[in-house]
Amino acid sequence: MPQNIYDDPDFFEGYSQFRRSREGLAGAAEWPVMQTMLPPMQGIRVLDLGCGFGAFARWAREMGAASVLGLDLSEKMIARAQELTSDPGVTYRVANIEKIDLPDDSFELVYSSLALHYIEDFGAICAAVRRLLVAGGRFVFSVEHPIYTAPSNPGWQDDPSGIKVWPVNSYLVEGRRVTDWIRPGVVKQHRTIASYVNNLLDHGFRLLRLEEWGPTPAQITEHPDWATEVHRPPFLLIGGMKDE
Amino acid sequence: MPQNIYDDPDFFEGYSQFRRSREGLAGAAEWPVMQTMLPPMQGIRVLDLGCGFGAFARWAREMGAASVLGLDLSEKMIARAQELTSDPGVTYRVANIEKIDLPDDSFELVYSSLALHYIEDFGAICAAVRRLLVAGGRFVFSVEHPIYTAPSNPGWQDDPSGIKVWPVNSYLVEGRRVTDWIRPGVVKQHRTIASYVNNLLDHGFRLLRLEEWGPTPAQITEHPDWATEVHRPPFLLIGGMKDE
Repeated sequence: MPQNIYDDPDFFEGYSQFRRSREGLAGAAEWPVMQTMLPPMQGIRVLDLGCGFGAFARWAREMGAASVLGLDLSEKMIARAQELTSDPGVTYRVANIEKIDLPDDSFELVYSSLALHYIEDFGAICAAVRRLLVAGGRFVFSVEHPIYTAPSNPGWQDDPSGIKVWPVNSYLVEGRRVTDWIRPGVVKQHRTIASYVNNLLDHGFRLLRLEEWGPTPAQITEHPDWATEVHRPPFLLIGGMKDE
Repeated sequence: MPQNIYDDPDFFEGYSQFRRSREGLAGAAEWPVMQTMLPPMQGIRVLDLGCGFGAFARWAREMGAASVLGLDLSEKMIARAQELTSDPGVTYRVANIEKIDLPDDSFELVYSSLALHYIEDFGAICAAVRRLLVAGGRFVFSVEHPIYTAPSNPGWQDDPSGIKVWPVNSYLVEGRRVTDWIRPGVVKQHRTIASYVNNLLDHGFRLLRLEEWGPTPAQITEHPDWATEVHRPPFLLIGGMKDE
């Protein structure tokens, strides 16, 4: 079971201050790209793995989804999501997404935003998602980019010539990374891009899209501090389809 | 047209000393993985883009390929390939692989080893390969890994804590990179992994496999100097199929 860092009071408080927490999808830099990878929402049943405050669940319903089930390991996140949502078509549940107990063929879309890099066994997630999806159903998710998660010391450095570099090491060594993010000792799971892609393919998905998110010129104009992100993508976005 | 560095006498001489030049496929560290991505050779027509000294062409024929056509921009490479090959089933031709003039639907496999990172317009290559392949035909290629090609200063550095790091910058900035490799001023084209993958998908290929090559423990035992490669994969290997 992953470390439930989001129920730590200080972490939760810190996380709650983020733009993506305060502003929902509009505050998530990668959302415009993620959105292009989604199927039409009208009438579909959606499962959100790591639903957080429920911003995606509410958006999916606004766009016409028949129902949304949001799962999250964090009781505090689920409580906040429930406070923010009054919609009988949305259900939230505290659950370990590594042990999903739901009927087969019951969703047209499984979505996950920035949650699966906390999960040790991504193959098991792919197997479960395949089982839960109808044939032709979509699995669309984002994770922290493997270039971002690989380093022992994940932080910008100045190289001897004075340029800002991202110090990659151990890229091919998958597994646990302990970093300081909001508070010290946050545990993530580093995996290669090959590992994300081949696990999907091996579990009967067709790859539809792979995006390495970076800011657009317009986003950099609005948020000049995002400019460094072109040097090292922070997010990997993947869209797959359950093969028929 | 790409810089024809391989016809530079010093470069050609330097390149000829590499294990992969002297020993052929057995001297190419990534070959065991590449091999797992290939279809059965028996009876198929093969096109090799950037065939070099023809090691793959000869192997493909030994494995039963009906015919192999090897193209390379370098006259010296083609001359050496012809010296090394006496097989009427193999043809070599000096050609710019960005302007392939061959009939449609005439190959079951298009192969390319470490050549396409010299090419500016990878989308045009995908369009041409799709046209040349029969339905269900395979496109299997390797390139220098984007983490390897991205940096302005591509070389290992010691970070302040004393660990060896690969200094990534400008990963999302695609285009020309000028590096010193065998001789100064070698021009390569950096592209993201997303760009390789989405170009394939957009041109009607299904992704079958993506590998980020690193040495196995057995290879490290045999070649201890390869151990650093686990920190930053040198090669990206991709297998696709022309969708029917």
